[in-house]
Amino acid sequence: MKNFTLSLPTEIFFGKSQIDVLGDQIKKHHGSKVLICYGSRRIKENGLFDTITNILSEYEMSFFELSNILPNPRITSVRDGVALCKKERIDFILAVGGGSVVDCAKAVAAGACYSGDPWDFFTGGTKVKKALPVATVLTLAATGSEMNGNAVISNLEVIDKRAVMTPLLKPKFSICDPQYTFSVPAYQTAAGTVDIMSHVFEQYFHSAEDIFLQSRLCEAILQTAMHCGPRAIQEPIDYEARADLLFASTLALNDLLGFGYDGDWSVHAIEHAVSAVSDLTHGAGLAIITPAWMRYVIDETNTGKFYSLAINVFGVKKGKNRMEAAQQGIDALADFFAALGMPRKLEEVGIKKDQLEVIARKAAPSDPVGSLKELHYDDVLKILQAAF
Amino acid sequence: MKNFTLSLPTEIFFGKSQIDVLGDQIKKHHGSKVLICYGSRRIKENGLFDTITNILSEYEMSFFELSNILPNPRITSVRDGVALCKKERIDFILAVGGGSVVDCAKAVAAGACYSGDPWDFFTGGTKVKKALPVATVLTLAATGSEMNGNAVISNLEVIDKRAVMTPLLKPKFSICDPQYTFSVPAYQTAAGTVDIMSHVFEQYFHSAEDIFLQSRLCEAILQTAMHCGPRAIQEPIDYEARADLLFASTLALNDLLGFGYDGDWSVHAIEHAVSAVSDLTHGAGLAIITPAWMRYVIDETNTGKFYSLAINVFGVKKGKNRMEAAQQGIDALADFFAALGMPRKLEEVGIKKDQLEVIARKAAPSDPVGSLKELHYDDVLKILQAAF
Repeated sequence: MKNFTLSLPTEIFFGKSQIDVLGDQIKKHHGSKVLICYGSRRIKENGLFDTITNILSEYEMSFFELSNILPNPRITSVRDGVALCKKERIDFILAVGGGSVVDCAKAVAAGACYSGDPWDFFTGGTKVKKALPVATVLTLAATGSEMNGNAVISNLEVIDKRAVMTPLLKPKFSICDPQYTFSVPAYQTAAGTVDIMSHVFEQYFHSAEDIFLQSRLCEAILQTAMHCGPRAIQEPIDYEARADLLFASTLALNDLLGFGYDGDWSVHAIEHAVSAVSDLTHGAGLAIITPAWMRYVIDETNTGKFYSLAINVFGVKKGKNRMEAAQQGIDALADFFAALGMPRKLEEVGIKKDQLEVIARKAAPSDPVGSLKELHYDDVLKILQAAF
Repeated sequence: MKNFTLSLPTEIFFGKSQIDVLGDQIKKHHGSKVLICYGSRRIKENGLFDTITNILSEYEMSFFELSNILPNPRITSVRDGVALCKKERIDFILAVGGGSVVDCAKAVAAGACYSGDPWDFFTGGTKVKKALPVATVLTLAATGSEMNGNAVISNLEVIDKRAVMTPLLKPKFSICDPQYTFSVPAYQTAAGTVDIMSHVFEQYFHSAEDIFLQSRLCEAILQTAMHCGPRAIQEPIDYEARADLLFASTLALNDLLGFGYDGDWSVHAIEHAVSAVSDLTHGAGLAIITPAWMRYVIDETNTGKFYSLAINVFGVKKGKNRMEAAQQGIDALADFFAALGMPRKLEEVGIKKDQLEVIARKAAPSDPVGSLKELHYDDVLKILQAAF
């Protein structure tokens, strides 16, 4: 186990009607001019927007709106938000939505304290040094962005999708009311379930040996996602299923599972390249790439981890042939994703064969990706071809 | 799942040589006059005390000492520490040791900001309203006190052992270097392993149905303690085993497993009464009481939880007779504790039969304890008799 620092400053207010803490919490963090970031008009139609703005009014806070934030949120939205922050001297950013809205809000928070173009943060040249305080009202279980410092933004001008990660962008607090996720459609619930599981896989798989605690925690989250995702799809207003799925999404990517080891993260690198090119739903892309990645990287040196996954999560029977059992686990995973309604192949989602090289080049432009096994351009291309 | 707030302000610096952050961290929290709390002379003999005081000197901080803090820490030590804080205008409390030292340090931190006797906090009449900042340098994996707001203190004048729990006593930071636990003797390592497992049981067992995520996380910590405890006993300088055990102890009682449900906590209530009367090591008391409690409370209404424990943690084979399998799990737990070198019966540790009524009265003085099953005086007495 490598050294690590565990710092979890985000307070989570979890459960029914936790929106009631909103006013006090923004006040605690000295907010008075609030930028409400959101995606579609759904939050205006279902009453959540009014609930929030009534609270802000009650606390004598003014508010502004950054709307139409899309899945795979665009740098153009970030730029709009930054301009608004600077013009109106906004001092608090409130994301109301899923991971895309939260990520966009974080990028706005950083950009508002920076004189250049916010895309600079994503090209590696400029570090975030300061940011406005961010909080979230979560409406989707998926990215874990509500308790971490990550933001992923797409730039259509250069057809790229990139991430920043900094403790400065960890939300001050997040309001996680499972009821807000009741209306998430089946496809998005499925994609969120895949996203949660993928975050766990990225941390479960790495080159270190002799892991115990971390592996068991990862398996606990995987089992939960597999238990609750299908239940939430079948019965969208099942509070317990929605609650477990929502809290699992937070725990899957809040630094708790990643301690002490360098995760793999190559599936995310590949999928970000896929959805940069195609605007595919992130979880759907992960559902396609993950089994293909697993089948490509598994070998005699790392069978143990895939074997543990097969036995402990997929209920494959212990056997003498560990590779065979491990492969059965991967097959079970692919079948689980398909049963959720996720695509199995890139071809199904409109990717063309002649795009694969571009995607591979974006995923592994020069340095290799991955820690379980380092993947170069050629490796990524083979994975994409297998996933086609 | 009930509503909950997850607030984890304590920063954990985990790993080798993390003591290097000590000076900067105390400075960050505005400490300049530091009270170092510790137990035996061991930290003076092994160099840790010198390492710490050299850092404090380098940062031009002055320090004072509260030493000889005993297991089952005494209110008399707390009073001594409080007097020193007030006399010397101490502004930062640094606990160097295991849970007893940390708990005592927390009580001192609260007492230093209070005009009355610190025992007032433990009798329920007085709430902690303010406390000096506390940090810890941990040398034992057991109580989780390094990341929570709990403190348990014994008072020999009234033969009682009581707890306070308040977010105000959560440490600002904890330095968790597994190497500091290499010298923990086998018996204490075993007792710590039992303590970790008991914290999980107290949260695993409650009256709520339909639990998934929390149960799986609990099982992950239980499996880890059972995997790493014996390894650490057999090979005291096994870094990975010590590291997993140490981080498991933190996660077992930092609010992460307790979310959304009211844990049982009756075994702790009973054991606190046992060790108030006998000064028994807490973990040893828990090892005796836990199986007796389980055998007393298990019935047709709650077999499911005990069955899950048996199947998922103790590897009992699934069978048609769930009660039989559940009982096998309890037997396996009792055997595991015994194999660690823990006592099985109260008689073995010098408790006299005529003390059982006094202990039962202390554990359940008027209100019942427990949430899986409410236990009154008569129930507790029966459990103690079975554990005798």
